[in-house]
Amino acid sequence: MSYGQCFQAWRADCAADWHDYTHHPFVQGLGDGSLPRAAFLNYLRQDYLFLLNFSRAWALGVVKADGLAEMQACSATVHALVDGEMALHVRICAAEGITPEELQSTPEAVSNLAYTRYVLESGYSGDFLDLLAGLAPCVLGYGEIGLRLAADAAPDTPYHDWIQTYAGEDYQQTCRDVGRLLDSAVLRRLGPDASTLPRWQALSHRFATATRLEVGFWGLGRQ
Amino acid sequence: MSYGQCFQAWRADCAADWHDYTHHPFVQGLGDGSLPRAAFLNYLRQDYLFLLNFSRAWALGVVKADGLAEMQACSATVHALVDGEMALHVRICAAEGITPEELQSTPEAVSNLAYTRYVLESGYSGDFLDLLAGLAPCVLGYGEIGLRLAADAAPDTPYHDWIQTYAGEDYQQTCRDVGRLLDSAVLRRLGPDASTLPRWQALSHRFATATRLEVGFWGLGRQ
Amino acid sequence: MSYGQCFQAWRADCAADWHDYTHHPFVQGLGDGSLPRAAFLNYLRQDYLFLLNFSRAWALGVVKADGLAEMQACSATVHALVDGEMALHVRICAAEGITPEELQSTPEAVSNLAYTRYVLESGYSGDFLDLLAGLAPCVLGYGEIGLRLAADAAPDTPYHDWIQTYAGEDYQQTCRDVGRLLDSAVLRRLGPDASTLPRWQALSHRFATATRLEVGFWGLGRQ
Amino acid sequence: MSYGQCFQAWRADCAADWHDYTHHPFVQGLGDGSLPRAAFLNYLRQDYLFLLNFSRAWALGVVKADGLAEMQACSATVHALVDGEMALHVRICAAEGITPEELQSTPEAVSNLAYTRYVLESGYSGDFLDLLAGLAPCVLGYGEIGLRLAADAAPDTPYHDWIQTYAGEDYQQTCRDVGRLLDSAVLRRLGPDASTLPRWQALSHRFATATRLEVGFWGLGRQ
Repeated sequence: MSYGQCFQAWRADCAADWHDYTHHPFVQGLGDGSLPRAAFLNYLRQDYLFLLNFSRAWALGVVKADGLAEMQACSATVHALVDGEMALHVRICAAEGITPEELQSTPEAVSNLAYTRYVLESGYSGDFLDLLAGLAPCVLGYGEIGLRLAADAAPDTPYHDWIQTYAGEDYQQTCRDVGRLLDSAVLRRLGPDASTLPRWQALSHRFATATRLEVGFWGLGRQ
Repeated sequence: MSYGQCFQAWRADCAADWHDYTHHPFVQGLGDGSLPRAAFLNYLRQDYLFLLNFSRAWALGVVKADGLAEMQACSATVHALVDGEMALHVRICAAEGITPEELQSTPEAVSNLAYTRYVLESGYSGDFLDLLAGLAPCVLGYGEIGLRLAADAAPDTPYHDWIQTYAGEDYQQTCRDVGRLLDSAVLRRLGPDASTLPRWQALSHRFATATRLEVGFWGLGRQ
Repeated sequence: MSYGQCFQAWRADCAADWHDYTHHPFVQGLGDGSLPRAAFLNYLRQDYLFLLNFSRAWALGVVKADGLAEMQACSATVHALVDGEMALHVRICAAEGITPEELQSTPEAVSNLAYTRYVLESGYSGDFLDLLAGLAPCVLGYGEIGLRLAADAAPDTPYHDWIQTYAGEDYQQTCRDVGRLLDSAVLRRLGPDASTLPRWQALSHRFATATRLEVGFWGLGRQ
Repeated sequence: MSYGQCFQAWRADCAADWHDYTHHPFVQGLGDGSLPRAAFLNYLRQDYLFLLNFSRAWALGVVKADGLAEMQACSATVHALVDGEMALHVRICAAEGITPEELQSTPEAVSNLAYTRYVLESGYSGDFLDLLAGLAPCVLGYGEIGLRLAADAAPDTPYHDWIQTYAGEDYQQTCRDVGRLLDSAVLRRLGPDASTLPRWQALSHRFATATRLEVGFWGLGRQ
């Protein structure tokens, strides 16, 4: 797994929170199959609202980018999300008996609100790097979780498809691309010694806060 | 109590959540004196971070206002908060043995993050009205709570000063002013039949969501 | 030509400015072939920087949209711009002897800055409608200009390709789609009597200001 | 004159534009008294709209600041502008026979729009430093112009009061404070070697662009 140097460093800076996020009981339950179906369906419902706001945050990346290459990287993600993944999500939910109407009228859980609004507000109030530092734990954490569960999961877990989505080559490529985007965005703004700057600590703190909010997001599966 | 027509209407639209917020066990504990000191101190610590973000949201009001009068109304609030209330807050905390350093290094609770970032993001992504609809439950709810507790509170509650702050004429005047600002801002954008427009429902929904997040904020007193 | 009702009304509200924009000497020179080549090349150079900021503004539309359909409409435009039109623009410029390096290092003209920053700031400080009201004169004005020039242009104008791009069915479809997006966005926020509201005047004023700034943009061809 | 190190460096990076701005014929005309009254009155009318947007930009500084001290610095400026300078400006205009109604209905000149929207958009799309880099040429340039004209001006220039406003100790103190705010904001984000980072070039470029737009603003006195 190689999601880049910034990720590596910021992940290490918040190791305990990162472990809570990536080894959350919800995650473990996906792997060993013990996660109750109702919790998974609740997660799917919230994830629809999450993906809407997540797409908005990547679109804010296009607005805040510096130059065409960064804009294209963010735009491709927005396009993939709103024209691909959202439709896929609606189909998966339909297969589980959750209608589009139900998805749209689901009240947004506080922990869902907390994460997405934190990331969007980081992007609005800070710059492109603040936005990416808030987005990274979600994108890259799912990649890491997917890979680990694919290696360890119980053969008969009913959540095999979910695991394969994030362990699969497509998603892993996305993770490597986002890791590279992050590293190059930091380099082209803060130079090769970025990690010695106060700005670096602020970005690491954003990454850590977003990670903490991801822990809360898994918790909503319980509600 | 007369905090204006928009407040009246939106409060009625989310009556159950409004009751949960204004009659939260934390609030009742302030009134009857049963709130544990540790919970109150935890609230004070979080409130420092809250006030910082609350001030930022009112400053966003200056940016998003239409014309000098709205700008002056919001600017006066920012000024009162960052040059008055923040200093007062630091003194109150010092009297309780909480140092400024401790205030600044307090980790921000998720429910604190959730409310303030929701309001800020509402303001950034929406317009001046979306921002005010998110701010109103906090400003006006405290006014309503203050008045009720001042009438009902146990004579010996140790939280008498807190209650008087929000029941006092100064704060009540602020509430009436904010209610008027809100009514006039709606009128000058949406006209006299604003309540018949889809936009009104969206604003009422923002008010309701912010109210729901205020319930969560009281809950952090427990952590 | 049918670009929707809002466009129709706001265009009529600023008829003199609209005429100055759509019948600017630069435009007439494209049609009768009298526009000096140097002025056209200067326009192409500035248009590269314009398209970057125009793409950012449409991406802000994704962030500020209400629901998946509006997000998809804006995202499709961003995608078409950053992955299609920008590349096309670079090729057209290359054919004219303008290298990508030259495009990227062109100093941004004041009138270029004025229009794009006005639109972006409208979007940031206002809501989705303010953003669209600022974007509409550009998108729909080019459609109107393209159609008129295609009907009237001198057969031997060297700017035939430019005219066909905007008169062509693809671009005209885009204009009809944007007109529909605008009408439906106004309807779903301000209801069927939107034109009676103060908000409508503010939007019409944004449209008029953006139109005035478009006049200035043509003027840069002179510099 | 000591407005800090960042100012010193960025001013030197755009020396030609800085000279065009601070030695503009409009400025020279204030000093030697040759500026036509009509041009000055036109400037006063536009300056009202300018001050509104300038206040909004400083309020955005409160939103984008890091911590209470930066917030207080920006908030004090907003307060001084919207509660002091705006009222003063209305009185000065009244003394010149320009009514408040006339001020509010003055159409905003393109060069006025260009500067203020560029600064606001820099602030929204970038971070606190991008905002300050856009604001600095205005604040500090007026301080520098005021000092120079106070030393050189013709004794009988009718613009003596204007010159004294900006040469006066109050305004000079503001300039020193803003210079210090800028230096400390850069230091606390980018560290002591900020000037070696790519980020520094981007900030210097923002300062230069804002300076270029200030040149255009003087030009509107001609319209």
